[in-house]
Amino acid sequence: MKKSLSLLLISVLVSLLVNTPWTLTVLQAATGSEPISPVQQMVKINAKKAELGKRLYFDPRLSKSGFISCNSCHNLSLGGTDNIATSIGHKWQQGPINAPTVLNSSYNIAQFWNGRAKDLKEQAGGPIANPKEMASTHELALEVLKSIPQYRKEFAQVYGSEEITIDRATGAIAEFENTLITPNSRFDQWLKGNKKAISAEELAGYNLFKSSGCVGCHNGVAVGGGSFQKLGVLKPYSTQNPAQGRFEVTQNEADKMVFKVPTLRNIELTYPYFHDGEVKTLKDAVSLMGQIQLGKEFSESEKSQLVAFLKTLTGDQPSFPLPILPPSNEKTPQPEPF
Amino acid sequence: MKKSLSLLLISVLVSLLVNTPWTLTVLQAATGSEPISPVQQMVKINAKKAELGKRLYFDPRLSKSGFISCNSCHNLSLGGTDNIATSIGHKWQQGPINAPTVLNSSYNIAQFWNGRAKDLKEQAGGPIANPKEMASTHELALEVLKSIPQYRKEFAQVYGSEEITIDRATGAIAEFENTLITPNSRFDQWLKGNKKAISAEELAGYNLFKSSGCVGCHNGVAVGGGSFQKLGVLKPYSTQNPAQGRFEVTQNEADKMVFKVPTLRNIELTYPYFHDGEVKTLKDAVSLMGQIQLGKEFSESEKSQLVAFLKTLTGDQPSFPLPILPPSNEKTPQPEPF
Repeated sequence: MKKSLSLLLISVLVSLLVNTPWTLTVLQAATGSEPISPVQQMVKINAKKAELGKRLYFDPRLSKSGFISCNSCHNLSLGGTDNIATSIGHKWQQGPINAPTVLNSSYNIAQFWNGRAKDLKEQAGGPIANPKEMASTHELALEVLKSIPQYRKEFAQVYGSEEITIDRATGAIAEFENTLITPNSRFDQWLKGNKKAISAEELAGYNLFKSSGCVGCHNGVAVGGGSFQKLGVLKPYSTQNPAQGRFEVTQNEADKMVFKVPTLRNIELTYPYFHDGEVKTLKDAVSLMGQIQLGKEFSESEKSQLVAFLKTLTGDQPSFPLPILPPSNEKTPQPEPF
Repeated sequence: MKKSLSLLLISVLVSLLVNTPWTLTVLQAATGSEPISPVQQMVKINAKKAELGKRLYFDPRLSKSGFISCNSCHNLSLGGTDNIATSIGHKWQQGPINAPTVLNSSYNIAQFWNGRAKDLKEQAGGPIANPKEMASTHELALEVLKSIPQYRKEFAQVYGSEEITIDRATGAIAEFENTLITPNSRFDQWLKGNKKAISAEELAGYNLFKSSGCVGCHNGVAVGGGSFQKLGVLKPYSTQNPAQGRFEVTQNEADKMVFKVPTLRNIELTYPYFHDGEVKTLKDAVSLMGQIQLGKEFSESEKSQLVAFLKTLTGDQPSFPLPILPPSNEKTPQPEPF
C-alpha cells in the first residue's frame, strides 16, 4: 500500500516534469508496467441524468428532419459509429470526416478528430446545429424539448427546475456518454492476470505493438485518445479528404495533419478506419500505419499478429433497454424532413 | 366454464355464417359484450428466431447505404413509426405513404395500407428491395448476411442449417415483430374489470366511440387492422397523395380509396395520421373521421372525450436491450451510401 502510494506520487511528479497527462501515468503505475490499462468496470454517474441523456441521444427530434439522432451516426448497435466512410447528414449530405466511436470517448483528451471541443458536453451541441448533420438550431431543439411535459419533468428531477437549456441538455447527453465504456475485453482480462485470456499469437501481436512503437501513441486506458499526433510522420498520408486536423483549431502550420489519436478499443467494430474512413480493413490499417508513422514494412505474419492483438480489445458493449421517447403534442414544432 | 364454452362455439358458428374473422368473435365473447378486446399479455414465440429477427430489424446493412434499417422508419422508440408524414428513404427520397406502426401489426388482416402483403413475413421483404426505401436487393442483403459468421451460426441455430435465404431472414424478422404487442393499456385494464382505470371523460369518449359508429371499423384486439374500408364514405377525403389503396392490388374500381383500417392502439404515439400523414393532431383526426366517414360534426366536448378515450389505448411499449450487431469483415459487400 505504502509502496503503491510512493509509486503514484513519483508518477505524478515524473508526469509533471515530462508534461504528459498524469492520469495516464498513474493508471500505468496502477496496473504495473504495461502501457495500456484496463477499462473501468463501472463509472460513477448521476443515474437520472444519464437516463435523460440516453433519451436525448436517441431522440431524432433534435434534428430538423425529425429523422436523425445522435445514435444515427454513433450507433450503439454498431460499436458507437456508423460503419461508413463519412456520415450521412440532413438531406443525405455527405459528412466531411469519419464518425469517431462514442465508446470510451470520455477517456479522450478532447473531442472531434481535431479536438475542437474540450469535452463531451461541448461536443454534443455541435452536430445538432451543424447544417450538414442534424441541421437544427439550439433554439429549435430546445423548443421541441420544452413542449414535451415528460421532458420538462425529467429536467426538473435532474436539475432542480423545469428550465431546459442547451447546457443542461448537452450535459445530460454527456453523462449518458460517460456510461458508454467497454470493460472486460479479453486483453483487459489478460492485463488483470488471466494469462489464458489471449492466445500466443495475440500476445506476440501485443509485444510487436509495443516493440515496434505503436504504443507510443496508442496507450493508456483507451489505447489512444490521449494525445494529438501528426498523421504521416515518415511518409505523407495520401487522401482526397481536405481535413487539416489540429491546424483548423490552432492555425499553427505545424499542426497541419495533426489529429487526435483514435482509441483502438473495439477497433474490430469501428471500421472503416482513419479520419477519412478510406481504410477498410484492420490489416490495411496496420500496414499503412507501419509505413507512414513508423517507417516499417510489417511482414504478413506480423500483420496477422497485430490484427489478432487488436481484436482482443473488443469489450462488453453497453447494454440497456432501447429508450421509449415521450410523444410530441400540438405545441411541439413540426419536423421538416423535406 | 360450460357457459363460456358454449358462447365460444356459438361465436365460431356465427362468425363462419357471417364470414368475419372467427378469432375476433371469440375474443369478443371472451371479454363479454365489448367490441374491443385486450391485447394479449404474451405471445407464443420461438425466442431464438425472434432474437435473430431483432438483430436483422436493427441492421442497417440490409440497406444499400448501410444507414437505413427497419427500425429507421418503424422506430421502436417512437411507437413503431417515424412520426413524419411520409418516410425518408435511400438518398433522402420521399416515401409515398405514411409508415404504419409495427406495434400490434401481427393482428392486421394483411400488411401495408393497401394490404398487398398477406403477412408480416411477406411485408418484411418489401422495403429491403424497394429502390425508394432501403434500395438493396434480396441477393445483396443475403450476401451481406452470409459473409458474417455470427449470422450464419444464428441461422443454423434457428433453422437447422447455415443456409441464409430471404424466406428465412424475413421469417425471423416477422417472428420478432410478433413480439411487438402492447398489453396493459389503461383501457385494457378497464376491459378486464378495473373500473377505476379510466376516467369518466374517457369512458364517455368510449361510449361515444361506440354510439357514433367509429367502432364499426375500429374494433377487435387492435381497435382496427381487421378490415379494408373506403376512406371518405360520406364526403371525399381531400389529399394530394396519389395512393389509391386496395385498388392498386385488385384493379377493381370499387376499391379506389379503400385502405386497411389502421389500428388505434398507441395512437397517441403514432402521429401524424391518415395514409398521407397530413393530419397532425388526434383532435383533427377525430373531427375529420366524423365528417367524412360518419357524416357527423362532433362538438368540441365530444372531440375532447373521443381524444381522451383514444389516449387510454397506449399500452406497455416493447422493452428489450438494444441489439448489438456482429461486425462485417473483408468478405462483406461494402455499403454504398453516396
